[in-house]
Amino acid sequence: MLSIVILGTGNLAKHLFNAFAKTDGAQVVQVVGRNRDQLNWFSEKTAISDDFFSILEADIYLIAVKDDAIAEVSQALSHKKGVVAHTSGAVPLNAIAAERKGVFYPLQTFTEGKIMDFKPIPLCIESNRDEDILILKKLANCLSDNVKQIDSDQRKKLHLAAVFVNNFTNYLFGVGEEICLDNQLSFDLLKPLIKETAEKVQSMSPKLAQTGPARRGDQKSMQEHLKLLKNKNQIALYTLCSEAIENAYEKEL
Amino acid sequence: MLSIVILGTGNLAKHLFNAFAKTDGAQVVQVVGRNRDQLNWFSEKTAISDDFFSILEADIYLIAVKDDAIAEVSQALSHKKGVVAHTSGAVPLNAIAAERKGVFYPLQTFTEGKIMDFKPIPLCIESNRDEDILILKKLANCLSDNVKQIDSDQRKKLHLAAVFVNNFTNYLFGVGEEICLDNQLSFDLLKPLIKETAEKVQSMSPKLAQTGPARRGDQKSMQEHLKLLKNKNQIALYTLCSEAIENAYEKEL
Repeated sequence: MLSIVILGTGNLAKHLFNAFAKTDGAQVVQVVGRNRDQLNWFSEKTAISDDFFSILEADIYLIAVKDDAIAEVSQALSHKKGVVAHTSGAVPLNAIAAERKGVFYPLQTFTEGKIMDFKPIPLCIESNRDEDILILKKLANCLSDNVKQIDSDQRKKLHLAAVFVNNFTNYLFGVGEEICLDNQLSFDLLKPLIKETAEKVQSMSPKLAQTGPARRGDQKSMQEHLKLLKNKNQIALYTLCSEAIENAYEKEL
Repeated sequence: MLSIVILGTGNLAKHLFNAFAKTDGAQVVQVVGRNRDQLNWFSEKTAISDDFFSILEADIYLIAVKDDAIAEVSQALSHKKGVVAHTSGAVPLNAIAAERKGVFYPLQTFTEGKIMDFKPIPLCIESNRDEDILILKKLANCLSDNVKQIDSDQRKKLHLAAVFVNNFTNYLFGVGEEICLDNQLSFDLLKPLIKETAEKVQSMSPKLAQTGPARRGDQKSMQEHLKLLKNKNQIALYTLCSEAIENAYEKEL
């Protein structure tokens, strides 16, 4: 069984802890973090410490802290024998100060308190040593059926793509909510559509799934929509997205 | 049992036809359309006609044609006794030339050939006569557990909100796909994230679900992302969405 120490006590640390608790192949032997309140969440289930000089020995150290704290935390692990892996999409492998460096990046959005099924989540692993790839793969396979070896450069691009399909998409959902609430309509009305929009691209390229006034080049509908919008942000977004869609399908119109 | 004639032979006409075929409360007695090839799809299951002067008598006429053809098609029904309802999000009730006007708008994206469960789909109905509201409600209840009475003004706003959460969101999924393919990454990697992004807002306001560099005001990450983007559309979208998110959460940063 692989032994793990988790560094960090935030949302991802908790989700990873819960996921490992359900597997037979790996065990979290300690959680280390500065935030004593957050540490308490783990205290009934494993050893905890707020002292970065008292970290237990383990096969793998998983750093689940903010991106700009990864390098510093990894320094506290520089003399450990195990693999030291961070869990970030944007930080390169080399940010880790230890000799046995790794990345263990679950490509998903994690909601506080929600139980997640890790099986379909892409677990992107990286290391500069073949033997450490093997151990990270073994750990990742405990959680996910979707383990991928992806280097720092590609991971950065993947993280950027994730910003578009998650952060920006969620912002558009917020604009939809805004328009509903401004017009005494429940946001619930849009929820089945939101769900199906995401469902559709599971089996069809978004390029083929595209519909709407901009896709049809329907200037009249777009002009009418713009007249209905009063919020400056909404107008700018409507204009830019519509132009981008029109440009993308121009040749087909 | 309510009798229905469907006018139109496109994607929505087929989805409505399939949905009514499964209910006991309503029956499609005829499908009328200009496109003979498309009409054939219905021919084994109901009466068909391409002659707008041979429309059968029915309780309800559902017009499922392009927005700008609704008024014209409704003229062929102006002397019918039944309720004449269109199925569009953007067209006002008054576009219908018949005396008994109605709207029967399913707020969903319909994929060709995919079997849809109508139960959760919001069916937005409208009429200017109480008795016709009742008959449209009765028909809508045959298909959906989510029937709402919504007037033309509100429906127009709802349709606009749907453009943001469906059309524009799908476009962002396409940008994510583009970034993946440009970097030899499979779009499959983003699919669980896309699904969960939509799942999350089913039970949480998008305002609360927002994460990412722009939400954190993390200028360094945003600058790095912009450097990775080469496509002009992508840069403009990244900049605008990030600014909009930053503005929305400014006070909290």
